[in-house]
Amino acid sequence: MSTAEFHAWWAERRRAGGFSVERIPFDALDSWEFDPQTGNLGHASGRFFTVEGLQVRNGGNGGAEIWSQPVINQPEIGILGILVKEFDGVLHCLMQAKMEPGNTNTIQLSPTVQATRSNYMKVHRGAGTRYLEHFTGPHRGQVLVDVLQSEQGAWFWRKRNRNMVVLATGDVPLHEDFCWLSMAQIRELTMVDNLVNMDARTVLSCMPFLLPEEAGTPSGDAFHDALVRSYQYQAAKESRSAPATAGGILSWFTEAKTRCDWTARLVPLTEVAGWKRDDWEVTDEGAENFRIIAVRVAAGTREVTRWTQPLLYPRGEGRAVFIARPVDGVLHLLVRARPEYGLMDQVEMAPTVHLHPGQDLDGIPEPFLRDALLPGGATTRYDQVLSEEGGRFHHALTRYQILEVGEDFPLDVPSHLCWMTARQLTDLLRHGHYLNIEARSLLTCLLSLC
Amino acid sequence: MSTAEFHAWWAERRRAGGFSVERIPFDALDSWEFDPQTGNLGHASGRFFTVEGLQVRNGGNGGAEIWSQPVINQPEIGILGILVKEFDGVLHCLMQAKMEPGNTNTIQLSPTVQATRSNYMKVHRGAGTRYLEHFTGPHRGQVLVDVLQSEQGAWFWRKRNRNMVVLATGDVPLHEDFCWLSMAQIRELTMVDNLVNMDARTVLSCMPFLLPEEAGTPSGDAFHDALVRSYQYQAAKESRSAPATAGGILSWFTEAKTRCDWTARLVPLTEVAGWKRDDWEVTDEGAENFRIIAVRVAAGTREVTRWTQPLLYPRGEGRAVFIARPVDGVLHLLVRARPEYGLMDQVEMAPTVHLHPGQDLDGIPEPFLRDALLPGGATTRYDQVLSEEGGRFHHALTRYQILEVGEDFPLDVPSHLCWMTARQLTDLLRHGHYLNIEARSLLTCLLSLC
Repeated sequence: MSTAEFHAWWAERRRAGGFSVERIPFDALDSWEFDPQTGNLGHASGRFFTVEGLQVRNGGNGGAEIWSQPVINQPEIGILGILVKEFDGVLHCLMQAKMEPGNTNTIQLSPTVQATRSNYMKVHRGAGTRYLEHFTGPHRGQVLVDVLQSEQGAWFWRKRNRNMVVLATGDVPLHEDFCWLSMAQIRELTMVDNLVNMDARTVLSCMPFLLPEEAGTPSGDAFHDALVRSYQYQAAKESRSAPATAGGILSWFTEAKTRCDWTARLVPLTEVAGWKRDDWEVTDEGAENFRIIAVRVAAGTREVTRWTQPLLYPRGEGRAVFIARPVDGVLHLLVRARPEYGLMDQVEMAPTVHLHPGQDLDGIPEPFLRDALLPGGATTRYDQVLSEEGGRFHHALTRYQILEVGEDFPLDVPSHLCWMTARQLTDLLRHGHYLNIEARSLLTCLLSLC
Repeated sequence: MSTAEFHAWWAERRRAGGFSVERIPFDALDSWEFDPQTGNLGHASGRFFTVEGLQVRNGGNGGAEIWSQPVINQPEIGILGILVKEFDGVLHCLMQAKMEPGNTNTIQLSPTVQATRSNYMKVHRGAGTRYLEHFTGPHRGQVLVDVLQSEQGAWFWRKRNRNMVVLATGDVPLHEDFCWLSMAQIRELTMVDNLVNMDARTVLSCMPFLLPEEAGTPSGDAFHDALVRSYQYQAAKESRSAPATAGGILSWFTEAKTRCDWTARLVPLTEVAGWKRDDWEVTDEGAENFRIIAVRVAAGTREVTRWTQPLLYPRGEGRAVFIARPVDGVLHLLVRARPEYGLMDQVEMAPTVHLHPGQDLDGIPEPFLRDALLPGGATTRYDQVLSEEGGRFHHALTRYQILEVGEDFPLDVPSHLCWMTARQLTDLLRHGHYLNIEARSLLTCLLSLC
């Protein structure tokens, strides 16, 4: 499928979808209700997810409360899977035009399979999940990637999904909601706002073997060549830079976790101070954070065609930035060890800067980072608005940026930051709970620059 | 220090210790009390640890309760650190003769530093932790190992400690409670019951680079040579065996986590059904599981010389067994993906069989494993009784065994089991939450057979 053909198919899918999403009051939710005791919002089946309270206390046990908020608790592990197959010697990914109720623009480009366990175990009695047999059945293909990765630690309680890439064996019948795209095409589509969805981005980030072959030849463009070298293994060297060896990175990360002196727990939603609930939303009293709302959805392309559900609705757009700098001709990314209260192990590796909706540059404690993010502070290499998971979040947009800084930018950075190559980050993606969801999204964006 | 000198020093340390441990009723505890509302047992400072309830429910949210028990909650991260240094070209470990109240035999051989955060932050106002500056200060040595590893998932709630190995720079003054031992000496001492403590074992398991050099030469002994090859990287091969590649192991492990359809939470201790509390202990009504008791300790070699604390007291001895089998001349261990309710991510890699105190062979669901554990069912390569952490557990002993089976033992095993080499397991130890504490202990025992 040529790119022109893709866009024609895409426009046709948008038209064919025929779906609507409307906000409704909580009491119009079907099978969802607030528990009279805890105030938690859950589904009658006990499946899908609940909205509960998250409470953070200082110190090990019994310290003072330092934070509380509502949080989405979805302990079951879903599958985000991309099926790949060679056509004429070129690896292609089977991608899906998928509607999600929270999407700002109806359909987005999604993995082959994107299904919660409740979903594919058919708790809602809908149709089966297409292509699932390639990922879980006894006749599944060759598994290339299979790792549990976390999702938003600010909004989810310890959520993780199974990121899979499977090489298809045999013929794969093509359903009209799906198309085969080469990596080059997907890289191109990553340059479009709100097209490649979050679930696709996280799986794509775990596919480092898809670096284009021609990338090995120096192009003469200094940024491009430094980027390609960033994906290659670097010989250990004595250098003013040599920010970290693989072992040094692991130790830096362990140190960052050890510094966390707080404990997070689930508590009843009624115990979250400073938040209130009316007929239409759960919101903080200052109206600065997100809201929990309810929607009614009608859709033709989903497994069931009508349903209601809650969504988390942020106020405005987030911003996630990797600052990149060549060091001895190799592009390095400035990675932050970022504590987030909803993460399973408290800290993951994150973009240099991640501002939640409503936070502005003043929220960045490090002046040298603030300066780089001001207009003219760096060379913009990537700058697109992409969507977060539309199955749980309503219109959650993040501006993703990769900003290149020059050799005058400090290599010596505070202990919560560390310079790493793309290869070092990519190697960690074989394991879960190292790179957070925003860092993984940005790695997919970075790959699109190759 | 020769081994004879070691034993003389050890005997002297035992005599010098001068300590006593006596059981007391809960109301004789100092600064520890049961919370009137939750029934949780905690320290007035909010530090150290608490005894709370653990509740497990079927399914994602809101399913039926399938299990509950008391559990030790100690969210803070302690340091288990071994300082190493070369003497005459041979790497030595600085080991400590350390008293722990729950030890069955007063002192055991412990890491250089074994301290909770409360401990080394001096919450109890005792003396500083010796040698701590080598692990945390700005002048610390070269970090060789630095990883968070889990502890007993049956007794702890998501506990993890920082396992560190640091190469000393400069002179290290020797305190009388400490001694330098070569790896060969430590391997020899691993053959003694209840000598090398749990904290030492877990750190030692993360030191794979300490395989003796001479191990490379074939000895003519088939088991020994297969063991040495098990520590070496094997070329990928097509073989009836080839149980797993590194990627295959990660996928197998992800699959095992995905199969878990239960959720564990902390609840107030009063909500744990089937357990009761009297003046002296918290116990299950069937008297089959562990008890929570209280002790008073007087000791000369600890940071503070008198204190009281709760301990978890198991009823009898556990048993942890790795079944080992040569496959094409390379020793493979049969590893179990074992769910445990207290583990942070539900499943870790465990010995082939782990029986808790009170469980017998009938508790093993797989007949072919039961048979191997019967007398005469396999060749015993390692068989010692070793202690679990004496700072939290009272007389918690586990019989650790490595049993070799022959080529008639099945290579095709159920999906919760997987054959792996020592090298494959060791490589995973760079990361946390792969191998559980019993598997790590057994890896240290395995190394002693080299």
